[in-house]
Amino acid sequence: MIPRYSRKEMVDIWEPATKFKIWYEIEAHACDAQAELGVIPKANAEAVWKAKDVAFDVARIDEIEAVTKHDVIAFLTHLAEHIGADEARFVHQGMTSSDVLDTTLNVQLVRASDILLADLDRVLAALKKRAYEHKDTVRIGRSHGIHAEPTTMGLTFARFYAEMDRNKRRLQAAREEIATGAISGAVGTFANIDPYVEEHVCKMMGLRPEPISTQVIPRDRHAMFFATLGVIGSSMENIAIEIRHMQRTEVLEAEEFFSPGQKGSSAMPHKRNPVLSENLTGLARLVRMSVVPALENVALWHERDISHSSVERGIGPDTTVTLDFALNRLAGLIEKLVIYPENMLKNLNKFKGLVMSQRVLLALTQAGVSREDAYRLVQRNAMKVWEKGADFKTELLADPEVTAALSPAEIEEKFDLGYHTKHVDTIFRRVFGA
Amino acid sequence: MIPRYSRKEMVDIWEPATKFKIWYEIEAHACDAQAELGVIPKANAEAVWKAKDVAFDVARIDEIEAVTKHDVIAFLTHLAEHIGADEARFVHQGMTSSDVLDTTLNVQLVRASDILLADLDRVLAALKKRAYEHKDTVRIGRSHGIHAEPTTMGLTFARFYAEMDRNKRRLQAAREEIATGAISGAVGTFANIDPYVEEHVCKMMGLRPEPISTQVIPRDRHAMFFATLGVIGSSMENIAIEIRHMQRTEVLEAEEFFSPGQKGSSAMPHKRNPVLSENLTGLARLVRMSVVPALENVALWHERDISHSSVERGIGPDTTVTLDFALNRLAGLIEKLVIYPENMLKNLNKFKGLVMSQRVLLALTQAGVSREDAYRLVQRNAMKVWEKGADFKTELLADPEVTAALSPAEIEEKFDLGYHTKHVDTIFRRVFGA
Amino acid sequence: MIPRYSRKEMVDIWEPATKFKIWYEIEAHACDAQAELGVIPKANAEAVWKAKDVAFDVARIDEIEAVTKHDVIAFLTHLAEHIGADEARFVHQGMTSSDVLDTTLNVQLVRASDILLADLDRVLAALKKRAYEHKDTVRIGRSHGIHAEPTTMGLTFARFYAEMDRNKRRLQAAREEIATGAISGAVGTFANIDPYVEEHVCKMMGLRPEPISTQVIPRDRHAMFFATLGVIGSSMENIAIEIRHMQRTEVLEAEEFFSPGQKGSSAMPHKRNPVLSENLTGLARLVRMSVVPALENVALWHERDISHSSVERGIGPDTTVTLDFALNRLAGLIEKLVIYPENMLKNLNKFKGLVMSQRVLLALTQAGVSREDAYRLVQRNAMKVWEKGADFKTELLADPEVTAALSPAEIEEKFDLGYHTKHVDTIFRRVFGA
Amino acid sequence: MIPRYSRKEMVDIWEPATKFKIWYEIEAHACDAQAELGVIPKANAEAVWKAKDVAFDVARIDEIEAVTKHDVIAFLTHLAEHIGADEARFVHQGMTSSDVLDTTLNVQLVRASDILLADLDRVLAALKKRAYEHKDTVRIGRSHGIHAEPTTMGLTFARFYAEMDRNKRRLQAAREEIATGAISGAVGTFANIDPYVEEHVCKMMGLRPEPISTQVIPRDRHAMFFATLGVIGSSMENIAIEIRHMQRTEVLEAEEFFSPGQKGSSAMPHKRNPVLSENLTGLARLVRMSVVPALENVALWHERDISHSSVERGIGPDTTVTLDFALNRLAGLIEKLVIYPENMLKNLNKFKGLVMSQRVLLALTQAGVSREDAYRLVQRNAMKVWEKGADFKTELLADPEVTAALSPAEIEEKFDLGYHTKHVDTIFRRVFGA
Repeated sequence: MIPRYSRKEMVDIWEPATKFKIWYEIEAHACDAQAELGVIPKANAEAVWKAKDVAFDVARIDEIEAVTKHDVIAFLTHLAEHIGADEARFVHQGMTSSDVLDTTLNVQLVRASDILLADLDRVLAALKKRAYEHKDTVRIGRSHGIHAEPTTMGLTFARFYAEMDRNKRRLQAAREEIATGAISGAVGTFANIDPYVEEHVCKMMGLRPEPISTQVIPRDRHAMFFATLGVIGSSMENIAIEIRHMQRTEVLEAEEFFSPGQKGSSAMPHKRNPVLSENLTGLARLVRMSVVPALENVALWHERDISHSSVERGIGPDTTVTLDFALNRLAGLIEKLVIYPENMLKNLNKFKGLVMSQRVLLALTQAGVSREDAYRLVQRNAMKVWEKGADFKTELLADPEVTAALSPAEIEEKFDLGYHTKHVDTIFRRVFGA
Repeated sequence: MIPRYSRKEMVDIWEPATKFKIWYEIEAHACDAQAELGVIPKANAEAVWKAKDVAFDVARIDEIEAVTKHDVIAFLTHLAEHIGADEARFVHQGMTSSDVLDTTLNVQLVRASDILLADLDRVLAALKKRAYEHKDTVRIGRSHGIHAEPTTMGLTFARFYAEMDRNKRRLQAAREEIATGAISGAVGTFANIDPYVEEHVCKMMGLRPEPISTQVIPRDRHAMFFATLGVIGSSMENIAIEIRHMQRTEVLEAEEFFSPGQKGSSAMPHKRNPVLSENLTGLARLVRMSVVPALENVALWHERDISHSSVERGIGPDTTVTLDFALNRLAGLIEKLVIYPENMLKNLNKFKGLVMSQRVLLALTQAGVSREDAYRLVQRNAMKVWEKGADFKTELLADPEVTAALSPAEIEEKFDLGYHTKHVDTIFRRVFGA
Repeated sequence: MIPRYSRKEMVDIWEPATKFKIWYEIEAHACDAQAELGVIPKANAEAVWKAKDVAFDVARIDEIEAVTKHDVIAFLTHLAEHIGADEARFVHQGMTSSDVLDTTLNVQLVRASDILLADLDRVLAALKKRAYEHKDTVRIGRSHGIHAEPTTMGLTFARFYAEMDRNKRRLQAAREEIATGAISGAVGTFANIDPYVEEHVCKMMGLRPEPISTQVIPRDRHAMFFATLGVIGSSMENIAIEIRHMQRTEVLEAEEFFSPGQKGSSAMPHKRNPVLSENLTGLARLVRMSVVPALENVALWHERDISHSSVERGIGPDTTVTLDFALNRLAGLIEKLVIYPENMLKNLNKFKGLVMSQRVLLALTQAGVSREDAYRLVQRNAMKVWEKGADFKTELLADPEVTAALSPAEIEEKFDLGYHTKHVDTIFRRVFGA
Repeated sequence: MIPRYSRKEMVDIWEPATKFKIWYEIEAHACDAQAELGVIPKANAEAVWKAKDVAFDVARIDEIEAVTKHDVIAFLTHLAEHIGADEARFVHQGMTSSDVLDTTLNVQLVRASDILLADLDRVLAALKKRAYEHKDTVRIGRSHGIHAEPTTMGLTFARFYAEMDRNKRRLQAAREEIATGAISGAVGTFANIDPYVEEHVCKMMGLRPEPISTQVIPRDRHAMFFATLGVIGSSMENIAIEIRHMQRTEVLEAEEFFSPGQKGSSAMPHKRNPVLSENLTGLARLVRMSVVPALENVALWHERDISHSSVERGIGPDTTVTLDFALNRLAGLIEKLVIYPENMLKNLNKFKGLVMSQRVLLALTQAGVSREDAYRLVQRNAMKVWEKGADFKTELLADPEVTAALSPAEIEEKFDLGYHTKHVDTIFRRVFGA
């Protein structure tokens, strides 16, 4: 977790204090269920709730752990300091540490998901707003970095919207994947604890019981979760790369918002660098790097080994905190992105009319010219534009083979921008609904 | 694609002949739609279907491509050789190469998914069968590779079933992700082609129209697809690792089926090596390695660059072919896995009764002994077993502090295996339904 | 291995026929050593060389393997068909299959390295030639995609040269890493074979004896090898990305060579797409994807498990073949890259003089203006250029606060391009030597 | 960086205070060189050293950065607060932020390397000690997890030594890779600063001048560095996996040291889990995960973009801190590992004599039996051991076809363990030298 790329809300989920609070709730709910089943006295279950408002002393628990070398035992010992050794006697009964730890991790991941879903909503709202704002702002579409045909800035935002909307649905699915808990004992047989305890605790913690667990919740769930975050990271990179391209000096179709007090470079004061989107490109790599270890965590030995734990201590907080920060940065970036429609038009006209060659090619074919001849005619005139800076329309109008097939008016009509934007509304309906 | 790890059915999907067939169908359906719209003559659209049963000449197309350096043009040129230059005049009109290529890739991935789903069904059927067969076959559960508490072999199969069942649902979702097509032109604006063509072609090819595309279908879809295959690969590794552990000499609770003619090793004829599950461990790595490049493919420049293409030429066939082979190998492995219940029992009894320590601990607590004292008592007797090979039950019965809290009958009862298997039916119901 | 991204020379290394030839040589040399030691009769050792010129029948060996399910036994059986069952009796004596397989893999990797080193030499020669050719071709340097200060095209080539030269040295080190062989028996103890056999075979095959092996050569060597190829892949991507940027329509400082017959796009005949460098970007991802599985291959169980084998059957050929193809494509691309110095100058002058702001800032500081004031003065005038398209020099000359510190001549001097290229020779000496 | 997996010495390298100290030293040395060149007044250069013993106020610098949004400017502003605004006037002259930042990163990585090299020395010393201690401790070698032939525990330690020794040499090379600095200005042309400054600063900071830099030091160096750490991580996993296997209940050939006060499990007090080596398995995954983003960092746009920076803020500290912690944990683990030679012998004898089958096979061949017949004879008797628990030697002595070829004494001799250990000294000499 890199402080400068962190937001408090997400960091809090991973604080020891939060963790102990969740442990406590799980133990307390488990006691309730055990009391209900008649396994432990009701009074003891009730006594646990005395600590309901306690902020557990992280330093004290660490101190105990230094001796016991076992975190859950350290916590239970500390809990007994709050509710009384005798009252605490039945806490954790029939449970194994992993029942608590694994269920807690999933509670944390679910909460992290909820924040990330809200982040995505913010990104989506920004993209939608900018999409409608620039629905008809014409710019040149580019394939291979080369001018192709006109499109609109609104379509660019709309496609990022559609992509992030898919990511939202993926994240919802990933959230469901890890919204399970397990209180199933040392190897998952419920030998020492009734399945009802698991059901009750899960219900109270907003989880579903894991249908079959071992000592741990199966890690394919977590692998899928982190893989999904990795895909979201890549989509984030996709948007960031687009902005970086738009801002490069020769293109300058957009710029990241540049606040008055901000200094771009200590040496070159004229520079306005797309540092936020470059930063997002790097953060995307950080988010993605959790995918491989999460996949490697799946194959645990027999009913569990603990190799996954250190990995999750790293990628659990780091990946969710980084992605949360990045999505918020991305949202702000989109919200405030400065768009230069006039530069878009200037770029579009860089090769006057050359980008309309496809239309001319089609028109020639439709006028009866063979595909091969049409291609040759268009290419011949296009090359004059490319190599000598000629005007494409002028060249076409002066080419007798072309004018033999198309009238001047017909040629003229091929250079109408409206031709390229006529389906924008249709596409917007597909993306944003009616 | 490694021939020895390939099955014909999946390989066929990626053959050039299959690809050209799909190209052809897309072009033909597009012509139908164009004719319906009145854009091209109906006769020309109909003429395209003359090639319906043609097996395209891959070598001839390669030959043309060597000149044109463009695969789609090469194909169209060859198609014209079949249906006549004049009749072919309107084929591909208003379309761009990527309309064909990208839609084709998704058709291939959908077909690959269908095979993989069938593979998973075979794996699931095998796991279910073996789970019921060994529902009550008791074996020791292990955490950290160390004996913990008893469980059953059926539960092991059942949890792999549950994991693979989740994978099936993930793959169904991934299949939906990539079941889209796009015929939207050079930059996705439908400038030169009516959206109806896309709708018609997609419908005929079993796809949904991509709501918004550029020159290509957005690559977050493919990233999600390959990430899902990566998770399945990891689950496969999970099962393989379990089998390898069960087969190791000192454990020997199961063995891969060893056909009579098979030689295990040129040097050590007594060896029966778990080579299939070791192989699956390696194949899992091969499947997973596509995840990172698929994630790197998402951020294309502007309306597309072609960097994703070479990656997909690799991981498209390789990953689906390898996973298909591996899942079938896995299914066969599970179907024929030789289980040794007697060895399971022998292993379980290796430390006579020690694995019951958790029960005794609980019983002591419930009998009023403080948690800390109970722990001390159990640990004290456990250590005698561990260090001197004593019998746990005998030691407990001889420990006055223990017998002060528990009667001999109560101690005796703690060593009943039925205690550990009493919820197996409940778990099976959760996993396999009523 | 993707046929279209393959060169015969590298593919040949991985053909079954090559593999069997290497197996044969290892077995034959081992027999020589065994005979020298008096372990087997000299006549039998000599008899093996009867097959010296045999092209082994791959199909026949496959046929035998289908029965024995063991490749080395299949090969030995076939070898006996050539040299006689009786003569073949001592072949492979004291050896284990892995002695042959692992040593063979390293022979293949060493040969692959030699080709890749030659490839790098070709790339280096091309980069050096173009570096000197454009040593003084001024272009704008860019950080964050934004114009910074002038540099030269020669420096760009020179830095790629330096990077690829580092890669050459890395690859030489990686080649040394895997240039070992092992003939040490079933678990690496030489129980059944004298270490002299290993020494002799390694010497004859151009390898060093592995100081300590188990059944296999340790896989950290291979991990390091593939990690090195991954770094080379990334450097390749680095060059490709630079070319793609240079070729984009708005920049157009360079173009991939466009052969007369080549068609850029079926729809937009004017387009010249940087498809080779985009392709190299993708191939870099394919090369890199072998790194993770190679790292995962290191931790084998005890004296070996066979999980690494399937991985290496994939990444061994695929990664070397792809990188070999890519480096040759890269070399050709650089050799024929079309450079547009006039466009470089045009781009450089896009913001007349603005890129000289750093010099002006320095001059002001040196003339006694405080750093903060100097920054303010430069920024104030720079903003006029940026926002209103003014000429930077003109603005400075008209700013009384600036002229109070610097004379017109001094200001004028700051706009001399020679200032920026004065150390090019120094840098070239560092990179290319005297 | 995960606090529980961190050692102070390595963490300190990455503290802001350390970073600012290095920045300061670079700036101060640069001033010296500039004064030597006559570019800035000697007095100003000397004045900078007034801050030599200052512990920079990190909070204050952060405060300034919150306004300027530029870290180096914030630092320089703070530095001026210490040495006086006037005296500070020439600090950083002609330099760009990256000159400082990139050189600093490499200073940090070099220092981190030195700690890691010392860590490896500790690991190597532990491995060597244990290797000699158990040079002749016989244990069964295993391939595929199946008993193969005898080896010794010393050989196991020796091969880990050899592997880690290779890693040491790799890390030394990686250290050299990143031991460069650059003070070359905004795009690497030295336009505003003489190369002598770079030479002087590098010399004083223990670095070599980067032969050719842009705004940044080329990232292929860092990629190689992190790739090397990844390989070391995998080797660490290799050792950890071996220990986990040795400790599993059925094998129990070794155990991690278990301190008296330590509790293994809250539920199963008899358990001694190999939690350190399982933890190292996970930490290896964390170390390795930096490799891919480091490779992705290589291809920066033109003379630099800043995408690499956030990645390095993560993996720079995290990977070195984790690996440093892990190597120390590994060293301690090896130093204190409890070895059970008697269990090794017990395991070795599990299939009385079966592991000697290879010797018998060879002896039969040498006695003139055809390879195929010898194989059949050995297999036939081996199967009786395998399936019925018979004694291999007894079976062989009772098999007339065997005794027709080998005398009882010859058969007897094949079961001598010394046969397998006779080359241990040779191998030790290869690994540890004379």
